[in-house]
Amino acid sequence: MSTVDKQLEDVKATIDDEVPPRISVSDVTYEGPELVIYTRDPKEFAANSDLVRRLASKLRKRITVRPDPDVLAPPAEAEAAIREIIPEEAGVMDLKFHTDTGEVVVQARKPGVVIGRRGSTLRDITREVGWTPEVVRTPPIESSTVENVRNFLKQEREDRRDILERVGRQIHREPMSDDEYVRITTLGCCREVGRAAFIISTPDTRVLIDCGNKPGSNGETPYLDVPEAFGAGANGIDAVVLTHAHLDHSALVPLLFEYGYDGPVYCTEPTRDLMGLLTLDYLGTAADDGRTPPYDSEMVREAIKHTIPLEYGDVTDIAPDIKLTLHNAGHVLGSSVCHFHVGDGLYNVAFSGDIHYDDTRLFDGAVNDFPRVETLVLESTYGGRNDYQTDQEDSERKLKQIVQNAADRDGKVLIPTFAVGRSQELMLVLEEAMRNGDIPEMPVHLDGMIWEATAVHTTYPEYLRDDLQDRIFDDDRNPFLAEQFNHIDGGDEERQEIADGDSCIILSTSGMLTGGPVMSWLEEIGPDPDSALTFVGYQAQGTLGNRIQRGVDEVPVGNGRSETVPLEMTVETVDGFSGHADRQGLENFVKTMNPRPEKILCVHGDESATQDLSSSLYHDQNIRTFAPENLETFRFR
Amino acid sequence: MSTVDKQLEDVKATIDDEVPPRISVSDVTYEGPELVIYTRDPKEFAANSDLVRRLASKLRKRITVRPDPDVLAPPAEAEAAIREIIPEEAGVMDLKFHTDTGEVVVQARKPGVVIGRRGSTLRDITREVGWTPEVVRTPPIESSTVENVRNFLKQEREDRRDILERVGRQIHREPMSDDEYVRITTLGCCREVGRAAFIISTPDTRVLIDCGNKPGSNGETPYLDVPEAFGAGANGIDAVVLTHAHLDHSALVPLLFEYGYDGPVYCTEPTRDLMGLLTLDYLGTAADDGRTPPYDSEMVREAIKHTIPLEYGDVTDIAPDIKLTLHNAGHVLGSSVCHFHVGDGLYNVAFSGDIHYDDTRLFDGAVNDFPRVETLVLESTYGGRNDYQTDQEDSERKLKQIVQNAADRDGKVLIPTFAVGRSQELMLVLEEAMRNGDIPEMPVHLDGMIWEATAVHTTYPEYLRDDLQDRIFDDDRNPFLAEQFNHIDGGDEERQEIADGDSCIILSTSGMLTGGPVMSWLEEIGPDPDSALTFVGYQAQGTLGNRIQRGVDEVPVGNGRSETVPLEMTVETVDGFSGHADRQGLENFVKTMNPRPEKILCVHGDESATQDLSSSLYHDQNIRTFAPENLETFRFR
Repeated sequence: MSTVDKQLEDVKATIDDEVPPRISVSDVTYEGPELVIYTRDPKEFAANSDLVRRLASKLRKRITVRPDPDVLAPPAEAEAAIREIIPEEAGVMDLKFHTDTGEVVVQARKPGVVIGRRGSTLRDITREVGWTPEVVRTPPIESSTVENVRNFLKQEREDRRDILERVGRQIHREPMSDDEYVRITTLGCCREVGRAAFIISTPDTRVLIDCGNKPGSNGETPYLDVPEAFGAGANGIDAVVLTHAHLDHSALVPLLFEYGYDGPVYCTEPTRDLMGLLTLDYLGTAADDGRTPPYDSEMVREAIKHTIPLEYGDVTDIAPDIKLTLHNAGHVLGSSVCHFHVGDGLYNVAFSGDIHYDDTRLFDGAVNDFPRVETLVLESTYGGRNDYQTDQEDSERKLKQIVQNAADRDGKVLIPTFAVGRSQELMLVLEEAMRNGDIPEMPVHLDGMIWEATAVHTTYPEYLRDDLQDRIFDDDRNPFLAEQFNHIDGGDEERQEIADGDSCIILSTSGMLTGGPVMSWLEEIGPDPDSALTFVGYQAQGTLGNRIQRGVDEVPVGNGRSETVPLEMTVETVDGFSGHADRQGLENFVKTMNPRPEKILCVHGDESATQDLSSSLYHDQNIRTFAPENLETFRFR
Repeated sequence: MSTVDKQLEDVKATIDDEVPPRISVSDVTYEGPELVIYTRDPKEFAANSDLVRRLASKLRKRITVRPDPDVLAPPAEAEAAIREIIPEEAGVMDLKFHTDTGEVVVQARKPGVVIGRRGSTLRDITREVGWTPEVVRTPPIESSTVENVRNFLKQEREDRRDILERVGRQIHREPMSDDEYVRITTLGCCREVGRAAFIISTPDTRVLIDCGNKPGSNGETPYLDVPEAFGAGANGIDAVVLTHAHLDHSALVPLLFEYGYDGPVYCTEPTRDLMGLLTLDYLGTAADDGRTPPYDSEMVREAIKHTIPLEYGDVTDIAPDIKLTLHNAGHVLGSSVCHFHVGDGLYNVAFSGDIHYDDTRLFDGAVNDFPRVETLVLESTYGGRNDYQTDQEDSERKLKQIVQNAADRDGKVLIPTFAVGRSQELMLVLEEAMRNGDIPEMPVHLDGMIWEATAVHTTYPEYLRDDLQDRIFDDDRNPFLAEQFNHIDGGDEERQEIADGDSCIILSTSGMLTGGPVMSWLEEIGPDPDSALTFVGYQAQGTLGNRIQRGVDEVPVGNGRSETVPLEMTVETVDGFSGHADRQGLENFVKTMNPRPEKILCVHGDESATQDLSSSLYHDQNIRTFAPENLETFRFR
């Protein structure tokens, strides 16, 4: 009997001891990080809430109780019964039965009606059909991405159960080693922006954090083939943790499955879905540009199938000796500061991922309050000594001025932007400005994946700021539904028409002019001196965006980018909209961090930015700091 | 066809082009780092010395020309002929035929007579029997270790040829990676003394430098199971390089073969033989102490079989992208500073191993002059801010005083010492002092492996200082043959007799009182207040030697060391005999180093010693310095 099986036997014995004989326990299994108890008496179990708490504390595991499949009505039958029970005015749109969990997700326009007085309707449902109802609000904008992901996961539920069981056994295995140490290995994004990838390792466990591409580079990937990573085989890594969905952090996660990786990916639910959206777009862009994509879309599906979504604040076992907790990072939807608790009080490391320190229109500022942290791995995108950015109010004023000027000249405003995050922030700014009459009403065209990314935002309102959530759920006040927003879905013909038309604003991907529909817009509008090209985000070295900021005045166009058009547009940079904390924000993040970290690794920034930040955090705040190179390993205990 | 085979075909074609048709080339193979050309015309080849030089330069390989086995007379027949040719007064002791190389090693008391006028006798031999004679002087003290090693290698010559061919193919394979980087990973002996082990790695190659035990620890070994080392399998490492034979550098080299490692070990010839001697003794001591040895003696033989000996100054390809050169380190017989030239001018790293900066009676000081060096990995045993040692003259005066005092009290002097190095240095001091009448004549007993280690020294006189070589070859002046030296070979009975007898000096292993015959001596003499326990070498933390230096006044004895005897001897430390450079020597080594290194890793010293040295080299010499922890990785390019 394996040590896991033996240990599971012990767990079962403990459960049998604790659970009163009148409540049945039909099975106990590991499923990813959770211990799942199946019972034929889910209601009795649920009524005895102290019982679950006692078990969790005794076993030191996260426990989920599920009805035994035997007590569930068949879905077709249950659906009819449930639709009968719920009043029609609830506007039930959809029912999804999750056989593996015994849950039925009820999507409705008016969740309150579904729940009923003090949950009475929900209780009626369980009594009638056995299933546990979960009620979600129908998102105001339908996201095909989210829909596809959910349908896919439902279709793959058997594979998924196998994966979760395997991962669960892996997590709950006995540690093998008597040694104790914690190491971080840098595989990318050190003294550079892009190809984020780190390993945190202990004698028993190796966890990969992020696996991104490097925009503007000639295919530079993280150093995945060193022995510390996958050089020793595709399953040398126990788990992958994804801070957020931007491609410089996520693009090569599916590639790991191409290599044969077969383990879990931990991230928030929106990060999972946005990773799907962005990596599929990444494959499409590569194909459009005549490059061979490094993997095919099947691998994106594998990545999604292996993802175990976590919510902010949940402390989760991801290995025998590592607990992971995700916290809001304020950068994009679902972005996380990842906190690793290693061993039993041995060591704590927080990876910032990309952070925004201050609140924005979309998100609260990044969390920097933890039970314990000894080492912080900190992004340094704007860590340079002069990387102070104007505050959001001034930036908004400047943006409005640019729009006004372009309108006065009958020109257009082209804003290259990441589909996820900055686009939605800008939509909120522009919608308000037009509503208040600060700038003339004009169409705002959304190209690339922006509309779809916006839809994903409205599907996960709990990741947005409270006041924005409220507005989204009020059809009349939902800023994203304002009529000036136009989703470009007519291809180059529609673009041509818009280019030939009146003043307008265009938000288009990619954000650093490394491909995507923005290249068509540059070809169309580039030569128009009345229009304005407006950068609102960080332009990494090697990207066309960076070159234009430094004075390049022509744009490669056409197939293979062999021709050029002159760039006659005015070129503007409005720097307060970045999703990244500026120098001040990074300093504040550290200064107000609780507890104060002992060591900081400054990563994810140009050489000078990481060194400047490292040196000034050391001098001003007296913390041991490092500006690592790629491929180094630091030992902490 | 593999890339190596293809490349070998190209090499053969080039050789065929360059070699005149009258000289036959019967085969071309890789054998370890060398390209071996077999010819039926060895004399013509040798006559045309420019030809070999031209080939070596064209092919950028080290070339050895060997006679085709067909042209060699059978050994029995050849031996008779050779003994006929060489005059009797040469004193030929032994002939060894190396079929694999076509060489015959002629061991004689008078090498000059064997060689003949301008080498005429040697030429006669080759003409007569085809074999290439190499003449060596019969060592004045027979070493069974060396004899055993040589006989073993002869017996295993077929296996050995296979190993060399395999290693040769490995070395001359095409590099696979487009990346360029150089990394050093610390597996042991950082912020501690003992368990030396480092990895130097490139995208194509990983080389392990040293693999020692940690004296005084509870079996702490280098971190061999991390993925950068052997975690990814026993042949994740391409080559092992051994700086010198002391157990804290060599003890676990045989263990690698137990793990399944099957690659080469590079070191000097005396290091190979001493490693054999010391690791076998290590196994014996472990068994005596009731510990389970980590491997058996078969693995020591494997290590010897896989050793490719190098001479100081030879630049040797050990991987497609790494050249290794060994230089005298002045520490013990055969000890080396290991210089790695990575890539084609990419980077250079020197590992000091253990060094002695100044000349000693046995050795010239460590070499610190290299074509290029960017990073130095420097031992720091005496790197602490107060680790200045008295110079050798003062130390000798102090030692003589201790001997004199003990003699005056009719006491004995017990000196725990490493068998290799310090023992021979002390023998030279004591022999001279007695010869000059500085101290009374008295027996000097050599226990443990000291006599055998001394014999190995006389077998490799070319590794000793010139003046010492001269004396060794003059029987009347050979200091090691002085009559007061007595090799203990009668076990505890002999020890008992000596302990009950008159004043004498005892040199005995182990040098840090971690086991070995010195424990018996302590049991016998420990309670004698007229005798002196005299430390002459570094006593690592955790060893009994260290505890006694810090005031412990009893000694564990008996089986399992469960009983104790009081330690009534006077305890003395004479610190100028260490094989290690002191603080001043380390500073001088760096200060006079040519070229000046850009970075220094201070290793192989207690935490405070490495940090002190690191900090003062930085402040005084303005070099970037580090005091790494174990399990860290540094990237250099």
